[in-house]
Amino acid sequence: MELKQLGDRLVRFVGGKSGMWRVLTIRPVQGDVLPQAERIAVCRGDESSPLESQWTLSGVISNIRYVERPEQQELTLKQAPLGRSEATMAALIPIRKTAAWWNLTQEERRSIFEKKSHHIAEGVKYLPSIARQLYHGRDIGEPFDFLTWFEYAPEYSEAFEELVRTLRKTEEWRFVDREIDIRLMRESKG
Amino acid sequence: MELKQLGDRLVRFVGGKSGMWRVLTIRPVQGDVLPQAERIAVCRGDESSPLESQWTLSGVISNIRYVERPEQQELTLKQAPLGRSEATMAALIPIRKTAAWWNLTQEERRSIFEKKSHHIAEGVKYLPSIARQLYHGRDIGEPFDFLTWFEYAPEYSEAFEELVRTLRKTEEWRFVDREIDIRLMRESKG
Repeated sequence: MELKQLGDRLVRFVGGKSGMWRVLTIRPVQGDVLPQAERIAVCRGDESSPLESQWTLSGVISNIRYVERPEQQELTLKQAPLGRSEATMAALIPIRKTAAWWNLTQEERRSIFEKKSHHIAEGVKYLPSIARQLYHGRDIGEPFDFLTWFEYAPEYSEAFEELVRTLRKTEEWRFVDREIDIRLMRESKG
Repeated sequence: MELKQLGDRLVRFVGGKSGMWRVLTIRPVQGDVLPQAERIAVCRGDESSPLESQWTLSGVISNIRYVERPEQQELTLKQAPLGRSEATMAALIPIRKTAAWWNLTQEERRSIFEKKSHHIAEGVKYLPSIARQLYHGRDIGEPFDFLTWFEYAPEYSEAFEELVRTLRKTEEWRFVDREIDIRLMRESKG
């Protein structure tokens, strides 16, 4: 196992006292919360982690699983990159799904994900205002199956709350058994 | 990253001088070969690896990706477990697929995998004679995307060759850019 071979596909979110994202709130939505932290450092590939930390959550950028070609084309056209200067707000929402979810077949999962829960269609509505990136943790032994990351400008805060509320009401979310909602503000530590 | 948290979902195939599988041949099918080894040890979870080794290939048992419910039911009914006493022959076939494969959507991959290449339907024909297990390596930074493992009794050797020949002629296999074929015989080291 050479996780360093993943290069920039690997990301670590390190909760502690350093990093450019200041923690506003860490709130459990389902299941156990994480210890509080003042800041989060985002480390990619073999970038070294801060020496002092409360916790580290890791994830891998993988191939797409549910998005179909027309959706993918729409996403490519509309999506925004991470790191835009105006996107000073962020959310890190780690999610774990139940064994029942993972025992479903791919098409059963796709059916719940999009046909019933409109996960992609709902997300597309908020592009390009809200930039997103999904990291996978399940197959590297992480406590969370997914780390979902969002970046947006302050004027889209209410839109983001609406997106989160919409997704949490879906059938897909009945398969979520642990979820933590971490809100952040970009602020270089001076 | 706590790969040890994967428990028995994590396997390492360690090529060297110890292990219960004696290497008969290591043959490159596409791309670079691996160094020769006399034996392969199969280590699960946190089992310790042999001290001396030529190479280690790791993989993770993940959720199913392409199999649909009726196929899954047929597989469950017909498949054989690993470790049957009569299954003294094995094959370890590490495979890497091209970037073009990974840039396809799930349904495009499924279409090539099953509709055009009949990967599942062909495999089912050989159950329960040939027991199989798939391990994923791509998202843990391994050189191979998949480690495919097969166990069978000597009388099914020709059937196994037929299965391998059939799969290598499929459209799916046009996306394979590295493949090594390792044949093994079970033999406790005395």
